[in-house]
Amino acid sequence: MSLNEQWFTEIHQPTGSAFSLHITAKLQEVQTSFQKIAIYETLEFGRLMVIDGCIMLSSRENFIYHEMMSHPALFIHTNPRKIVIIGGGDCGTLREVLKHPIESITQIDIDEQVMRLSERYFPELCESNSDSRAQFLFEDGIKWMANAHKNSVDIIIVDGTDPVGHAKDLFNIDFYKHCRRVLKSDGILVQQSESPLFHLELLKTMYTDLKATGFKTVRSLHFPQCVYPSGWWTATLASDRNLKEFRIDSVQNKPFKTNYYNADIHQASFMLPTFLKETLTLQHY
Amino acid sequence: MSLNEQWFTEIHQPTGSAFSLHITAKLQEVQTSFQKIAIYETLEFGRLMVIDGCIMLSSRENFIYHEMMSHPALFIHTNPRKIVIIGGGDCGTLREVLKHPIESITQIDIDEQVMRLSERYFPELCESNSDSRAQFLFEDGIKWMANAHKNSVDIIIVDGTDPVGHAKDLFNIDFYKHCRRVLKSDGILVQQSESPLFHLELLKTMYTDLKATGFKTVRSLHFPQCVYPSGWWTATLASDRNLKEFRIDSVQNKPFKTNYYNADIHQASFMLPTFLKETLTLQHY
Repeated sequence: MSLNEQWFTEIHQPTGSAFSLHITAKLQEVQTSFQKIAIYETLEFGRLMVIDGCIMLSSRENFIYHEMMSHPALFIHTNPRKIVIIGGGDCGTLREVLKHPIESITQIDIDEQVMRLSERYFPELCESNSDSRAQFLFEDGIKWMANAHKNSVDIIIVDGTDPVGHAKDLFNIDFYKHCRRVLKSDGILVQQSESPLFHLELLKTMYTDLKATGFKTVRSLHFPQCVYPSGWWTATLASDRNLKEFRIDSVQNKPFKTNYYNADIHQASFMLPTFLKETLTLQHY
Repeated sequence: MSLNEQWFTEIHQPTGSAFSLHITAKLQEVQTSFQKIAIYETLEFGRLMVIDGCIMLSSRENFIYHEMMSHPALFIHTNPRKIVIIGGGDCGTLREVLKHPIESITQIDIDEQVMRLSERYFPELCESNSDSRAQFLFEDGIKWMANAHKNSVDIIIVDGTDPVGHAKDLFNIDFYKHCRRVLKSDGILVQQSESPLFHLELLKTMYTDLKATGFKTVRSLHFPQCVYPSGWWTATLASDRNLKEFRIDSVQNKPFKTNYYNADIHQASFMLPTFLKETLTLQHY
């Protein structure tokens, strides 16, 4: 069967695979100084945001990604107060973080238009943007990190795009070094780390670099993500903390609702398939 | 981006989504009495088998499905001796089952051509077909089950296609009743049960029907499956056994290699996301 112009298709060239969604309208297309952002209405996935031809999120499935980028780290940390998000312009991860009793969150996205379009087309993701604990900066997250105060942040969440273009330097040992410097001694770095099936080499390099940076523990969690290549995604956490323990009682009694994340899923998501365990040779696993 | 004729695309109409693989050749296409089977060479996924327009498996990713359809049940059962597979013509699940010290396995697939094409194009999946413990029948699995002896089988694995056409009656309370009759009192029924994201209603109906059949425990496990709709799939187990316990020592000391399955994954795969737990209202969970 072939797809006509009523479908948006993202081709993942290195694996010769593609994922498509049936669209009913293109709502907006903006070429910013950094990237081209498009918003579509789909038939069954709600709204769709695409950056430079790559699907970022849809209304239907973004809950899994946003919950898994935030809650595991927030519930591993014993007292998360100051949070930083690099990227994250759609504001879905920020919304999840703000469900916790944190003190402040600073989001640094290089492209203000991502947030502005999200406010307009994904208002449910932006419903906490007016929270007085949230601060938004529109500048280069890598430069911001290089200039940030030492020992000042509890959790850094790197919620960027794929490691191409301006996001490439987020997957880099120099950036990790600055993150480690900026984190408090028991702080946690969380980074989206691509597909376990399609990007094993990237994951391996991340492990090597994060350990070379000095982090005592590196662990990945995985979750389904049907609009990304391979439908399966990871986040990688690095810390001097023991990343195995988490506040299970707080998860079980959390005063807010999650649709994917729970205490069982927290533990399950860190359990790795054999091929991944072997590839990453997890001494700390 | 649009896809030309060098791509095979499977559209999942109810969700307006599609998955495509770059193909380099159509190796075979056969219209049998039951279905149309096509075999393609792909650019990066090895060989691809398609039945009636739906992707069945590729060389690259089938290990996850086949391991998760077999090993969890085989390691939950304390002494699995007699196994039956309904469907399973590609022989990948059978190969995994035969890694266990079972007594016999009978595979009943209505369409002999699936196995013949798998022997030719996926020889690695068929490498255990000549095992003396294996018997192959090419007939209607539903009729076979209706006529099979009571209390004669330890594990029934239903490895069929989607619940359309001749496979529809595999998702049916009458079929489940026959399975329960044919299973020994501590036997286990395993059935592929579609996507947790796209087929929630089917899963709910399966739970209701399996419980109405009399099975004391019903549990689902989930795993990534990048060539199926939503990239995320389930298998559902039903038994009078406690399905929570498994032979963890045997898994940790198994004399064969798996690429996805291990003791951690066994436990993790039964941990359900909140929306799924709530939908299935798992009293036994």
